[in-house]
Amino acid sequence: MAENGVVVVVTGVPGVGKTTVIDAAVKAAKNEGINVILMNYGTVMFEIAKAKGLVENRDQMRKLPSNVQREVQRLAAEKIAEAAREGIVLVDTHMLINTPEGLLPGIPVWVAENLRPNVFVLVEADPEEIRNRRRRDETRERDEQLVEEIRLHQEMCRAAAASCAILTGATIAVIPNHDGKAHEAAETVFKLFRAIAAKFGEVS
Amino acid sequence: MAENGVVVVVTGVPGVGKTTVIDAAVKAAKNEGINVILMNYGTVMFEIAKAKGLVENRDQMRKLPSNVQREVQRLAAEKIAEAAREGIVLVDTHMLINTPEGLLPGIPVWVAENLRPNVFVLVEADPEEIRNRRRRDETRERDEQLVEEIRLHQEMCRAAAASCAILTGATIAVIPNHDGKAHEAAETVFKLFRAIAAKFGEVS
Amino acid sequence: MAENGVVVVVTGVPGVGKTTVIDAAVKAAKNEGINVILMNYGTVMFEIAKAKGLVENRDQMRKLPSNVQREVQRLAAEKIAEAAREGIVLVDTHMLINTPEGLLPGIPVWVAENLRPNVFVLVEADPEEIRNRRRRDETRERDEQLVEEIRLHQEMCRAAAASCAILTGATIAVIPNHDGKAHEAAETVFKLFRAIAAKFGEVS
Repeated sequence: MAENGVVVVVTGVPGVGKTTVIDAAVKAAKNEGINVILMNYGTVMFEIAKAKGLVENRDQMRKLPSNVQREVQRLAAEKIAEAAREGIVLVDTHMLINTPEGLLPGIPVWVAENLRPNVFVLVEADPEEIRNRRRRDETRERDEQLVEEIRLHQEMCRAAAASCAILTGATIAVIPNHDGKAHEAAETVFKLFRAIAAKFGEVS
Repeated sequence: MAENGVVVVVTGVPGVGKTTVIDAAVKAAKNEGINVILMNYGTVMFEIAKAKGLVENRDQMRKLPSNVQREVQRLAAEKIAEAAREGIVLVDTHMLINTPEGLLPGIPVWVAENLRPNVFVLVEADPEEIRNRRRRDETRERDEQLVEEIRLHQEMCRAAAASCAILTGATIAVIPNHDGKAHEAAETVFKLFRAIAAKFGEVS
Repeated sequence: MAENGVVVVVTGVPGVGKTTVIDAAVKAAKNEGINVILMNYGTVMFEIAKAKGLVENRDQMRKLPSNVQREVQRLAAEKIAEAAREGIVLVDTHMLINTPEGLLPGIPVWVAENLRPNVFVLVEADPEEIRNRRRRDETRERDEQLVEEIRLHQEMCRAAAASCAILTGATIAVIPNHDGKAHEAAETVFKLFRAIAAKFGEVS
């Protein structure tokens, strides 16, 4: 039953090292026999839109009319909630996305309600650390942002997470991923999986 | 009419001195002829669950299935809103509770909407003050937390309160309770009662 | 169609210089052929209440019963959403208003949902700058507030904006208006208009 599924939503601003932390935590969980299904929210949305013939590539996703985008978002949330019947689902997504029109919510209320999340995880680092990581990172195209912009972005993500928690009853876990401490961050996420599996996982 | 009742929700992280402030403010209000009914949200929930034969002691509350817990939460909110027909009800509760799964909302949307609160009060202190108070406090079992964890907890409580205010239209009052200033904090809460009684209390 | 209208909500605490920034941004937009309709939320509410015979002057607005106030708030939101069929509507309002009962939400959920906003703009400055501006400002009656109160007010406005964004899917833009930099702030708001006109404005 979907009502007993476990959905962990993991978010973090670009450059925070979210992917590294997620991968290590999922691996550690698997080693202990805790099965974690990893789903990228944007990818699930793209697959739904593609199957419906709305887009052919990911760049076209942004150009969908708002109401269509919203419907695809809602369907993706339902698909993820359904997958959660099989075990812990970890959703890789964004709390707020930097756009030319401002910070765009990645988990608006119609997504939050359909996802039925148990936990919102915020992976964080010091703004200066994130700025330096973005500079070093040459594998992805990322805009340089000022430290103050990163600080603001992270602060607003916290507030947005609080709102999502109030709307869903899910918990919020803020997990620091400081330089040279990715292992500790992954360990904390893994312990969170264990606590969640113990609390919510018995029925699934 | 419940619609004209006055509900003041008072929250604060463990160690902030919420109980002292509440008791002094309620006493000061009574001295001025303003009747304040004090209700502890957890106690109201426990009494409802016990009357329904769901639990025998408070420890069992945490082990109730999520959907049952949610229903009990909702019923407690209704009971409090009903008590507010008789005067100002002060609800002693938590904005966010520290759990192994992260910060758990004490006032999710289905509680907020049923409580119909007029004001959310956040009793706060400096994180260092709270840490020291927890150390001195030997009457309750409390985990030592780092100053940074307390800072985060209070910051997230503010964001959660903002969300509750947007969802209900209630105001937010942040009231500092610094070392040696509990009297001033109580005085501020009492003045808030007076302002609320003047604004909303005429019909009750 | 109202669904394709563009609504930009601009907020800022008293003394932040919101009006100056708005006026300069609207002028710059008009110079580039982008038509921006400026609406003050409080004025729209007052006109509705007056037309209904509920009040004769603005002072009486505060004394309306809560449920009547709420209905007027909702009608004002609808009226603004309707005006947005004609172009970009800029709504001048408050995120949180300082009252004796605490910080009162200017955009509770029933307003947010009916406004169907695209962007929430927060005009901000350093708390010290705002305090000094309030001191110099002798054209309006404003209470002196401590720097800490202004800091808290702005922080809570950010959190409230995050909640409004989650509830509506609108973006959030935080725009600094530092001393001697009102021109830059206006330029940033104007660029936001341009980005919004490019993204949402094609149908209107």
